[in-house]
Amino acid sequence: MRRGVFITLEGPEGSGKSSQARWLAQALTRDGCRVTRLCDPGSTALGRALRRLLLETRADLSPLAESLLFIGGRAQLVEERIRPALAQRRVVVCDRFHDSTVAYQGFGGGLDVRWLDRLGRSALRGVMPHLTVLLDIPSGLGFARLHRRRDRMERKAAAFHRRVRAGFLRLSRREPRRFVTVDASRPAAEVRTQIEAAVRRRLGHG
Amino acid sequence: MRRGVFITLEGPEGSGKSSQARWLAQALTRDGCRVTRLCDPGSTALGRALRRLLLETRADLSPLAESLLFIGGRAQLVEERIRPALAQRRVVVCDRFHDSTVAYQGFGGGLDVRWLDRLGRSALRGVMPHLTVLLDIPSGLGFARLHRRRDRMERKAAAFHRRVRAGFLRLSRREPRRFVTVDASRPAAEVRTQIEAAVRRRLGHG
Repeated sequence: MRRGVFITLEGPEGSGKSSQARWLAQALTRDGCRVTRLCDPGSTALGRALRRLLLETRADLSPLAESLLFIGGRAQLVEERIRPALAQRRVVVCDRFHDSTVAYQGFGGGLDVRWLDRLGRSALRGVMPHLTVLLDIPSGLGFARLHRRRDRMERKAAAFHRRVRAGFLRLSRREPRRFVTVDASRPAAEVRTQIEAAVRRRLGHG
Repeated sequence: MRRGVFITLEGPEGSGKSSQARWLAQALTRDGCRVTRLCDPGSTALGRALRRLLLETRADLSPLAESLLFIGGRAQLVEERIRPALAQRRVVVCDRFHDSTVAYQGFGGGLDVRWLDRLGRSALRGVMPHLTVLLDIPSGLGFARLHRRRDRMERKAAAFHRRVRAGFLRLSRREPRRFVTVDASRPAAEVRTQIEAAVRRRLGHG
């Protein structure tokens, strides 16, 4: 592999992104890739602080404020972790990224999607994923899987989650070369096999 | 007064903004105005959390990440505190606002000033100060006044602070109708008198 490859996993809550990201990283490591696994927000000191602030605060943040914090945390993640890993020709597997902000605060929260997409990209300074795996799941089902989790995001209404899902699907149709969409309502092992096959195909391993 | 008035105080560290903001609020209250005194960041739950995060963290944040957090905190401040206060025809006196981000992360930190100014304004949704008091002070002098304070911002190099001061002056020249610039190296009582006179003139009290 001549240069680094940047892969993101996106999708609604309960779609199994975290487990699939872990399994994908393991599979790529077995294939001989040097893999950096990240989550956004979360993989920098700033990201962890923002994650606590965003998920635990009782304050009612506006979607605009929320999106700017996510984009700020992401700008730091790009410079501190992603760009250096790609420069070392590593494969970066990241749980959520830019598309989540567009889906949640744009399609879900009602911010202007074009404005938000442009702003979010301008803060990435050219670092966009080469491949994005969308784990699509009917919003009711993802929500049900998470019935025990009670953070701020997940208390939001079902209508919001339906808009988010539709938003992700729209983003995937807009960039069919970047996105691979998998049906995440299928059993996890099956989803895993599909993701690995899709990623290997795109990386030219398969 | 038919509508609210939004006044910001800007300037380098050590220029005396906080004391002057307090005195100005007192003077306007004596004049019969209903005054809301705020600081940015700091006057919302999010702002206080961001302030801790930004001033105390040892992490080396990029100017881009830093600016997005400030802008995000400000978007929340506008919706939660400033817009409602102006709707109630109050006078809002705010210690720092949009111009600080442009001066510090733009002129000081090297971000594209035009890009940052446009982005910052777009997050304010039309709420810009009617009057901005710039407390100008040679950067060496402001710095010396603060020799005991040792937070992250203030450890930055003297060259940075010179760029910030020059940036503030440039902003004030660009919008002469919004800005009033006072010489903050003069004794505090004299600066106070000048600010009060300038604000009363603009409010039509004087």
